[in-house]
Amino acid sequence: MGYNSRVAPNNDLEQKFHDQCAVFGVYGHAEAANLTYLGLYALQHRGQESSGIVTSDGVTHSIELGMGLVQDIFSPSRIAGLKGNMAIGHNRYSTSGESLLKNAQPLAVDFALGSMAIAHNGNLVNAGLLKDALEAGGSIFRSTMDTEVITHLIATAKSGNFVSRVAEALNQVHGAYSLLLMTEDEIVAVRDPHGFRPLSMGRLDGAYVFASETCAFDLIGAEYVRDIEPGEMVVVSPEGIESFHPFPKKNPAHCVFEFIYFARPDSTVFGDTVYNKRKRMGMELAKEHPVDADLVIAVPDSGVPAALGYAEESQIKYELGLIRNHYIGRTFIEPSQQIRHFGVKIKLNPIRSLIKGKKVIVVDDSIVRGTTCRKIVEMIRNAGAKEVHMRISSPPTTNPCFYGIDTPTKGELIASSKSIEEIRAYLGCETLAYIGMDRMLDIFGPNRNDFCTACFSGNYPVVTPGMNIFQPDLFELAR
Amino acid sequence: MGYNSRVAPNNDLEQKFHDQCAVFGVYGHAEAANLTYLGLYALQHRGQESSGIVTSDGVTHSIELGMGLVQDIFSPSRIAGLKGNMAIGHNRYSTSGESLLKNAQPLAVDFALGSMAIAHNGNLVNAGLLKDALEAGGSIFRSTMDTEVITHLIATAKSGNFVSRVAEALNQVHGAYSLLLMTEDEIVAVRDPHGFRPLSMGRLDGAYVFASETCAFDLIGAEYVRDIEPGEMVVVSPEGIESFHPFPKKNPAHCVFEFIYFARPDSTVFGDTVYNKRKRMGMELAKEHPVDADLVIAVPDSGVPAALGYAEESQIKYELGLIRNHYIGRTFIEPSQQIRHFGVKIKLNPIRSLIKGKKVIVVDDSIVRGTTCRKIVEMIRNAGAKEVHMRISSPPTTNPCFYGIDTPTKGELIASSKSIEEIRAYLGCETLAYIGMDRMLDIFGPNRNDFCTACFSGNYPVVTPGMNIFQPDLFELAR
Amino acid sequence: MGYNSRVAPNNDLEQKFHDQCAVFGVYGHAEAANLTYLGLYALQHRGQESSGIVTSDGVTHSIELGMGLVQDIFSPSRIAGLKGNMAIGHNRYSTSGESLLKNAQPLAVDFALGSMAIAHNGNLVNAGLLKDALEAGGSIFRSTMDTEVITHLIATAKSGNFVSRVAEALNQVHGAYSLLLMTEDEIVAVRDPHGFRPLSMGRLDGAYVFASETCAFDLIGAEYVRDIEPGEMVVVSPEGIESFHPFPKKNPAHCVFEFIYFARPDSTVFGDTVYNKRKRMGMELAKEHPVDADLVIAVPDSGVPAALGYAEESQIKYELGLIRNHYIGRTFIEPSQQIRHFGVKIKLNPIRSLIKGKKVIVVDDSIVRGTTCRKIVEMIRNAGAKEVHMRISSPPTTNPCFYGIDTPTKGELIASSKSIEEIRAYLGCETLAYIGMDRMLDIFGPNRNDFCTACFSGNYPVVTPGMNIFQPDLFELAR
Amino acid sequence: MGYNSRVAPNNDLEQKFHDQCAVFGVYGHAEAANLTYLGLYALQHRGQESSGIVTSDGVTHSIELGMGLVQDIFSPSRIAGLKGNMAIGHNRYSTSGESLLKNAQPLAVDFALGSMAIAHNGNLVNAGLLKDALEAGGSIFRSTMDTEVITHLIATAKSGNFVSRVAEALNQVHGAYSLLLMTEDEIVAVRDPHGFRPLSMGRLDGAYVFASETCAFDLIGAEYVRDIEPGEMVVVSPEGIESFHPFPKKNPAHCVFEFIYFARPDSTVFGDTVYNKRKRMGMELAKEHPVDADLVIAVPDSGVPAALGYAEESQIKYELGLIRNHYIGRTFIEPSQQIRHFGVKIKLNPIRSLIKGKKVIVVDDSIVRGTTCRKIVEMIRNAGAKEVHMRISSPPTTNPCFYGIDTPTKGELIASSKSIEEIRAYLGCETLAYIGMDRMLDIFGPNRNDFCTACFSGNYPVVTPGMNIFQPDLFELAR
Repeated sequence: MGYNSRVAPNNDLEQKFHDQCAVFGVYGHAEAANLTYLGLYALQHRGQESSGIVTSDGVTHSIELGMGLVQDIFSPSRIAGLKGNMAIGHNRYSTSGESLLKNAQPLAVDFALGSMAIAHNGNLVNAGLLKDALEAGGSIFRSTMDTEVITHLIATAKSGNFVSRVAEALNQVHGAYSLLLMTEDEIVAVRDPHGFRPLSMGRLDGAYVFASETCAFDLIGAEYVRDIEPGEMVVVSPEGIESFHPFPKKNPAHCVFEFIYFARPDSTVFGDTVYNKRKRMGMELAKEHPVDADLVIAVPDSGVPAALGYAEESQIKYELGLIRNHYIGRTFIEPSQQIRHFGVKIKLNPIRSLIKGKKVIVVDDSIVRGTTCRKIVEMIRNAGAKEVHMRISSPPTTNPCFYGIDTPTKGELIASSKSIEEIRAYLGCETLAYIGMDRMLDIFGPNRNDFCTACFSGNYPVVTPGMNIFQPDLFELAR
Repeated sequence: MGYNSRVAPNNDLEQKFHDQCAVFGVYGHAEAANLTYLGLYALQHRGQESSGIVTSDGVTHSIELGMGLVQDIFSPSRIAGLKGNMAIGHNRYSTSGESLLKNAQPLAVDFALGSMAIAHNGNLVNAGLLKDALEAGGSIFRSTMDTEVITHLIATAKSGNFVSRVAEALNQVHGAYSLLLMTEDEIVAVRDPHGFRPLSMGRLDGAYVFASETCAFDLIGAEYVRDIEPGEMVVVSPEGIESFHPFPKKNPAHCVFEFIYFARPDSTVFGDTVYNKRKRMGMELAKEHPVDADLVIAVPDSGVPAALGYAEESQIKYELGLIRNHYIGRTFIEPSQQIRHFGVKIKLNPIRSLIKGKKVIVVDDSIVRGTTCRKIVEMIRNAGAKEVHMRISSPPTTNPCFYGIDTPTKGELIASSKSIEEIRAYLGCETLAYIGMDRMLDIFGPNRNDFCTACFSGNYPVVTPGMNIFQPDLFELAR
Repeated sequence: MGYNSRVAPNNDLEQKFHDQCAVFGVYGHAEAANLTYLGLYALQHRGQESSGIVTSDGVTHSIELGMGLVQDIFSPSRIAGLKGNMAIGHNRYSTSGESLLKNAQPLAVDFALGSMAIAHNGNLVNAGLLKDALEAGGSIFRSTMDTEVITHLIATAKSGNFVSRVAEALNQVHGAYSLLLMTEDEIVAVRDPHGFRPLSMGRLDGAYVFASETCAFDLIGAEYVRDIEPGEMVVVSPEGIESFHPFPKKNPAHCVFEFIYFARPDSTVFGDTVYNKRKRMGMELAKEHPVDADLVIAVPDSGVPAALGYAEESQIKYELGLIRNHYIGRTFIEPSQQIRHFGVKIKLNPIRSLIKGKKVIVVDDSIVRGTTCRKIVEMIRNAGAKEVHMRISSPPTTNPCFYGIDTPTKGELIASSKSIEEIRAYLGCETLAYIGMDRMLDIFGPNRNDFCTACFSGNYPVVTPGMNIFQPDLFELAR
Repeated sequence: MGYNSRVAPNNDLEQKFHDQCAVFGVYGHAEAANLTYLGLYALQHRGQESSGIVTSDGVTHSIELGMGLVQDIFSPSRIAGLKGNMAIGHNRYSTSGESLLKNAQPLAVDFALGSMAIAHNGNLVNAGLLKDALEAGGSIFRSTMDTEVITHLIATAKSGNFVSRVAEALNQVHGAYSLLLMTEDEIVAVRDPHGFRPLSMGRLDGAYVFASETCAFDLIGAEYVRDIEPGEMVVVSPEGIESFHPFPKKNPAHCVFEFIYFARPDSTVFGDTVYNKRKRMGMELAKEHPVDADLVIAVPDSGVPAALGYAEESQIKYELGLIRNHYIGRTFIEPSQQIRHFGVKIKLNPIRSLIKGKKVIVVDDSIVRGTTCRKIVEMIRNAGAKEVHMRISSPPTTNPCFYGIDTPTKGELIASSKSIEEIRAYLGCETLAYIGMDRMLDIFGPNRNDFCTACFSGNYPVVTPGMNIFQPDLFELAR
């Protein structure tokens, strides 16, 4: 969600605008700020750069934003200052740069009708053009987030009340958005017509809660009610709860990568438990690409469910072949030249006695650039493996995402230019296999056509002129 | 500079909008960021809440903002990231609240013509009405600063180029402003038609520099050239330097409090050295209100020049009667009840052997609420003074400022409701005398009518409907 | 390692003296400080309270100590200041209190022969009596660590050179110690005669390295050579490497809890790979205590290897039933009363769809107080489990440890006063079973008698008068 | 107070062992920790490197130490943890190095009689030799402070109770010490037989308070009672207060530099108000070295009292010629080469209009290396002064201090090798004059022989073999 700072007038097409984020909201609970803190904490895996909470006591908004992890940003005194029984919160994906506090969300502004705050998960593909048009009309921009475009569209809308303005504004934007908006006394939860990103609704002690994933409901003890539907706008206000469908109907295009990598395994997204789907992908992978081997190991932690599925289906023993260091931080000091460079060793260590002389199947959820995967293969071989067989529980990632995931450019995606055999040779393993697209979609049964698979197929559900110059760059690093 | 967060729609008239600030700018120097850092450091006394620097390399703006003191905000790496040979910077006055980073300046935005940054010293009296109108036109506000109004007026202006838009925008605002604005390749320095706040121009190694006070020029070794005139707009761009006078001519209304308290004694503002004027005020005070006494002491540090003047004129010995603790910080822990509350003792300590049994004249620059002054009188009496004679080198402060100084409400100003005799009784001193308004203005000779004395007289040079609800509250505290 | 601050003279018997720690050392490598930093990082799981590194350049010691995690303490500039090609380092177990920096190790002192630094893993059982005697002889104590006793014994020893003094000193102490000592030009690595704690030796680029666990060697790319033997003292100096056995021979008493819980699964301690032993414990547990069920889940992460073993042996499916939040920090804010207290929810979340209506076997490595285990059982039941069967891969913990593990008092250990059936009732599960002591020791084959099992049996290999007043208190919390 | 880390055995003679510090103590007040916090705050000018407080509740000591300023170290929660109605505290002089927390005081240890804490102002001249002897006897040293020597001497003393041991220990040390010692239930205040450093006693609400300077009493509202006499040992315990004189009588040798520079002007030390003496020095200087001039200015703040005295005596007008920046911090970033190096400009700025064309007398308290003074002369000349006349209110500083002041080496003291005319030429002023030694001592009347003037005369009251290799280096910097 964002575009770079202006380089020169009339040349401000979007660049690094794809992040993954989390939203959370509460309407009607005395502990709104506290619950939002907990919800954001449970959704930390969706964004570690910055977090923020805006609350409303019916008259005034209170706001707290900060860089870093939820638990480091919100002290008891900062939470105590967040008054009111309504709140929305946001986690932003990890990039670097302390000066980017201006891009932290929720974005809170004053406009003609009063105060409004907005939290956004997704990415708009026509933000650059809209920004040009809005600036020509006299709007000023203080951030590099596409989300700011939405606030200007609402502020300049012709419609009367807030809800109508939101509908008018969102009818102008294209792309992915699961949004929470808050005025002094109402919360609006909206998903784009394709439903790219998840957004769920729950109840707790009579209050309404909203979250990107249901694991946030589990932590606060809320009951999951249903998903906000693609193209649906749910409004909670003193008048009660209402549902609107202000957009033309579109075919669903849920992000299949939520199931492959992003969502927490204990969450239910798009109506299914993530862990179950992930394990099924491993089972299907085993059926499609069996291999004779002594043990199955996972690249922790994201590869574990698929590895368990692969092992169960293949009846080959699953073992903890790679141990993960739980104390990894951002400030690690690389030792100087005289110490051999150790790549992923700082995060993972193989159990030598387990691997030595064995034929090993290694399961991971995806390969992006291939550099980390290559180091893991080398590490396992150095631990004495006789054979290394890589198995990937998603199809080859060949195209960048334009709908809210921060992927590298097409050129950096190893599968965009190399054949599977070339990738295998690069990785240095005996065999390499990915799950087939059809087999993966089979898992979803009758809903198999309701997913966006653009990163594997290049079939983008929503396309705009500016998209082809897209250059995101931070995916693998953030893993 | 600022208004409170919205309380309710259509009721957002200005409240706490009066701060004191500093601006600094450089055009055409390879060390622009470094020089601005130094300039802000020299101007730290005008604002300790937050600071910021925006630079331009001709194409892109770089920005760094932070809460606290200049030297704590700007690390070498943050300065190194500020590229380009143009810069503007800003110090903001001390209030509390870490969440107020959103109010730090310079305010940097994107708009139809590209990037613009703005640094403001002063206060607009019609900001609330303009904000209402702008919001009705579709503008959104992210801060509570009146300065944001100016950026919207520029963004929505009908004129073509930046300089014309600035003139068009500023013709709509009323009040006090000494502004520095920067686009990708030009800096605009403007003072309002009354010239409430100072703004000077200098030269250094061929570059142009701008500062609220000349002490900033002294530190960087720049040569003072002249003041920006009231109502003048100076533009420095690749085409050179130009001067415009786009506003209707007004009578000068320089803030006399710059001479009384705000400016550093080594600065030259409005054409005069501050120290000299302050000392002259003390001399005139001695002529007007002599008293038989043994020694003259000052309330440090702001009362020292006037005390020296009083002593010189009265031929009564000046002594360092009150010693100031140089290690005062914000985090001081108040001891619990069992230790007697010690008021100003944490900052000042009298030299008992000097004061004991003596008739003491105590000189200060002004009295706001009177509470601190009362504690000082008590402290000096407890040190054994036989008589305490307060002498104030400004007239009684009876009215709040609307032009950029953060004063308490009229009701909190002790002189607004009490006679001098009543104040004397409250302070507990033998005599109390203020300099007379005429005598004070006499010091400025033929320019005596070029000053705003509204805080003493209630004669406001610029008035708007919203002004009478003004409720600032932080003046004495910040002393 | 430590005793409480003096309560009253002549009553200073040891109290909270049982911690778990890590030591690491390098002799003869140009990157000694960097390697020690990496080694301590790999050993972070053994102590998170404080860390320290002391280096020697042959003449002078350099020292850096700090509270917190290795990666937070050692900045590049602090490491750069650690000169020389010899180093020893230490991680200390997590308790609270910033003022405990005085207890951070290595402990570095000056004494008659020059400088000495010491890093200690273990606990001395006669430290209190030795401290009394040393104080009577004129020694002063600045910390509450038993380790300081050793430095005084060395300083007051009658022997001539350092190595002889160390032997003389250690012949007076009883209990557990794996020690690294460093003078200006030699490193001494010693293990107590029982060999309670592990200590391994390796080689890297010609240098000697020492570590509590071999996972530290893996990270720096060093080759594991052998363990320091129980009762062995290895000296590396400019004269080369020498081995001494200065203590009377004792029966080995390796801490079996290193295999059960403490060591990292990828480490080799006491000659065996930890993961393999842990998995075998799960397999034996399945043979000894089978139960009809639908799935096996682990309490992550320490219960995972035994759960995999249980599943493999019982042929019941292993599933990721509990998902661990990876962003747990120390500063988590407990929400107020109005939000239902959520116990372990902040760390773990069950996958409901997996558990609902199922008979579930839950495997953990041990039960200490039982409070956390009870919450986990409740959580799994709330997720819909039909039956919950707890299986513990160690015998009931009935007695505190005196040899370097921070356990609660006997009274707080649930198994010290409750029968297994009573514990089961308290936990609220259908069945509860622990592995039998013999069956557990069977795994070690001919070495079955070389272990300390005092925490299960009460048979303490080393006993002193002061031991029965032992009151440690922090075990479960730190889990 | 301290010696360097060991360079090689048997060569550890004292090096950087001269600091200036503050001590403060309370016996018998419920707010002991709070009062000590306040006392240390008032004494901050005597040491800014580190601070510490140790309290006793009659049974146990509590301790808090930290690097930096008093107000930054002691949070309310840290003070709340300091239990008991007895306390001693210490401020240490500013040097650099965060690892020097080990040298923070009070030094708290356990020894044969229980707990003891010690706070020391001064310097021992035979610490190195005593340390060698103590180490040979089996003592270990954890700091590089000479103060640690005293604790070992007490711990190894033959005498029975604490007070006798202190007397026995102190009879072995030579040099300067104003000490506060605390056990579980008594406080001992001692001054060395020469009384080099000040130490005063006061009363507050029935409690006894002790402080290096009386300004600490003023802040807490305590009444000054008397000074601890040279060679006196005052003991306050549950049995009441007692005074001992356990040392052979010596001639007083009060540090005259306390009057010249160190003590706060509002303090009374050695029986006299500092400000009065400082002003008298200026008056005598004017009598001894008059010069025709237009104005007298001071180098702020230490030169102000003498400048006022000079002005009063000479009847030449005193002016605020140099304005001090009140926001100086440690982290100031020096701008790069392209900006002219600005020396003292960052701290001081001259008022040009005052100085231009004038004959200026500049008064300072002392000249150490001469580099800063030279820059000040240049700055005043650049501001347009016609003549610059330096007047120094102390004699030429020709010799280092061995008794607790951190001075540069003899070679670095400009007056040790240059004549006054040579110094004048180096400084670049028209005339330079120092007060004569006799004239300075005249001010003290009959007590003129009770002062240590070694830094001017080289006549050291206490001499030991190790003294001539003394190499301190931080004096001027810390100004």
